[in-house]
Amino acid sequence: MDRYAEYRAVARDVGADALALVPGPNFARVMGKNFHSHERPMVVVVPVEGAPAAIVPNLELGSFELVNFEGEVFDWRDQDGYQDAFDALARHLPIRHLAVEGQVMRVFVHHALARAYKGLEIIDAEREISAIRLCKTPAEIAALEDAIRLSEAALEETLEQVRAGQTEKQVESLLIQALFRNGAEDLAFGPIVAAGDNSARPHASARADYQIRPGDALLFDWGGRHGGFAADITRTVFVGHATDEGQEVYDTVLRANLKGHEVTRPGATAHDVDDAVTSVLEASPFADRIRTKTGHGLGRDVHEAPYIMRGNHQKLTPGMVFTDEPGLYEIGKFGVRIEDDILVTEDGCRSLTTMSKELRVVG
Amino acid sequence: MDRYAEYRAVARDVGADALALVPGPNFARVMGKNFHSHERPMVVVVPVEGAPAAIVPNLELGSFELVNFEGEVFDWRDQDGYQDAFDALARHLPIRHLAVEGQVMRVFVHHALARAYKGLEIIDAEREISAIRLCKTPAEIAALEDAIRLSEAALEETLEQVRAGQTEKQVESLLIQALFRNGAEDLAFGPIVAAGDNSARPHASARADYQIRPGDALLFDWGGRHGGFAADITRTVFVGHATDEGQEVYDTVLRANLKGHEVTRPGATAHDVDDAVTSVLEASPFADRIRTKTGHGLGRDVHEAPYIMRGNHQKLTPGMVFTDEPGLYEIGKFGVRIEDDILVTEDGCRSLTTMSKELRVVG
Repeated sequence: MDRYAEYRAVARDVGADALALVPGPNFARVMGKNFHSHERPMVVVVPVEGAPAAIVPNLELGSFELVNFEGEVFDWRDQDGYQDAFDALARHLPIRHLAVEGQVMRVFVHHALARAYKGLEIIDAEREISAIRLCKTPAEIAALEDAIRLSEAALEETLEQVRAGQTEKQVESLLIQALFRNGAEDLAFGPIVAAGDNSARPHASARADYQIRPGDALLFDWGGRHGGFAADITRTVFVGHATDEGQEVYDTVLRANLKGHEVTRPGATAHDVDDAVTSVLEASPFADRIRTKTGHGLGRDVHEAPYIMRGNHQKLTPGMVFTDEPGLYEIGKFGVRIEDDILVTEDGCRSLTTMSKELRVVG
Repeated sequence: MDRYAEYRAVARDVGADALALVPGPNFARVMGKNFHSHERPMVVVVPVEGAPAAIVPNLELGSFELVNFEGEVFDWRDQDGYQDAFDALARHLPIRHLAVEGQVMRVFVHHALARAYKGLEIIDAEREISAIRLCKTPAEIAALEDAIRLSEAALEETLEQVRAGQTEKQVESLLIQALFRNGAEDLAFGPIVAAGDNSARPHASARADYQIRPGDALLFDWGGRHGGFAADITRTVFVGHATDEGQEVYDTVLRANLKGHEVTRPGATAHDVDDAVTSVLEASPFADRIRTKTGHGLGRDVHEAPYIMRGNHQKLTPGMVFTDEPGLYEIGKFGVRIEDDILVTEDGCRSLTTMSKELRVVG
């Protein structure tokens, strides 16, 4: 088995003679282990044929031996800098067109490669490289379900502790502790805990200076990691009581979310799902509160293909996993979002999230 | 007050006519708020003179209003892609030489800029841009001390719960819960909890399948964030008992660590500190176990300038903060590292970490 076979094929497809992977979701999938790269470049270069080669910071050699690398390793020490290692790589493995992960590789690595390889064409093949992760294996789906299960348990525990008067930051801290208590290996992302007007910001940050009030919408967008896979769920609850408007908005978002489940099946496109879900919101009295598309793929990365939006005519196939997360956001007032993680199956779909979506009043 | 003054000066110094900031530590410092960029480019461009301009994902506009931006904003929606926004920026703000943060900006943003600005020269000014953060203000030092204090309290609580038979992953989970219980706003980085042979890997990952054994060295490299600032501390303890070799190695590393405190003062260079610290290790019977330089700057980023290593003749000045973290690592056997966070003062230095460094046996 050549663990690089799919990557060599992508390199060929985009007209490159090699493909570079840097620490991140693709690197983790191929190498079976991830690294933190920070200020130290680390790159695995896979040619369309023959042995790969790698640039590895000297102090990572002890960890890198765990990946059972098949090719030449060019290590470098902080004292000496990394350019010599890139130059040695260039002498060892001639390349003229290199496919890279544009959303993961940083500019300083791009520049080090360009300095080592005169006239190198660097091709952003993020989409093609990450497409290899589109359809999840049964083992990957099991890891996702583990991540989702522990995340749901963590929110359940947190909701029992929420009270009016707490700050968003306090509730965020409770949620994070609950995630790790329930077995999360990491956060999938910094969770969103947003009350009142802050819930109308799709990517809100929890505030230390806002005390949650009765009648507030309280939005949680959170997830833990397990086995390298990320959960990404949203539930919106109300504190003390829900206003009439809150209930009506909630019901609208829930109907849109359920529509997403209804239309997801192999052969439907990402466009079809977003169109069906967004049409429910558009037909409501709250159409002017639409701020986002329906969702995104989910796996090793919290945001990955397929992106569930109008204009994306990518066909859904069994094994794809994506979020179904319609929302309505009234700036300065409140927002509601409900987000499930959906697996495309042979004959339709299955929701990996199982937590109740009935309107819930807490505290 | 022009919050961009230092950044305009850097752009001028490196021969650029503008400077770009993407979400990360510099962006957070200038804008007073950070963002998660993921697959969505977000850039603030600051020309050497005149109003800045920004590219902002449409769904972040509600959060971006919190930064009170002074210039034109070019927003874009997922459905349309981001290139049009970059093209509009190029028409609005002509640039020929652009300074960027090479360790933060990713290749897909580099490419979007290059497509929008024909013939643009992109200059990696990471070092110059981040140098603006070198000397910490009293408020920043207070934030660092908060982060360190809560991190030390978290380890203290964790050490009381450690027992032989637990896995590294279980202990890691206890430590992370303790960090958030003690008020961490985020992890500064995924903590290292490494026992036995794993402690010999400077950047080890906690294992779910290794049970901590009596006699093991148990290394913790951890830190929480507070007020945007990161703690980064290491303590190595022994489980049940320390072997004679363990004690001897520990004493050697501690002497090297203390030497770092001793030689740190304004006017000394980063080279001087690493040289003094590493010389202690080199004079010991364990010189072949040296694997890393002495340390790195610490602030909004866990790894930043000044890098404390031989060959770096940067002078230390009051307000700089860096780690003093000598270690000795015997591959396949065990490692010891002791890491403090040191502030350079007017007449010497002050350790921001205050937790005991006496050899400690736990469990």
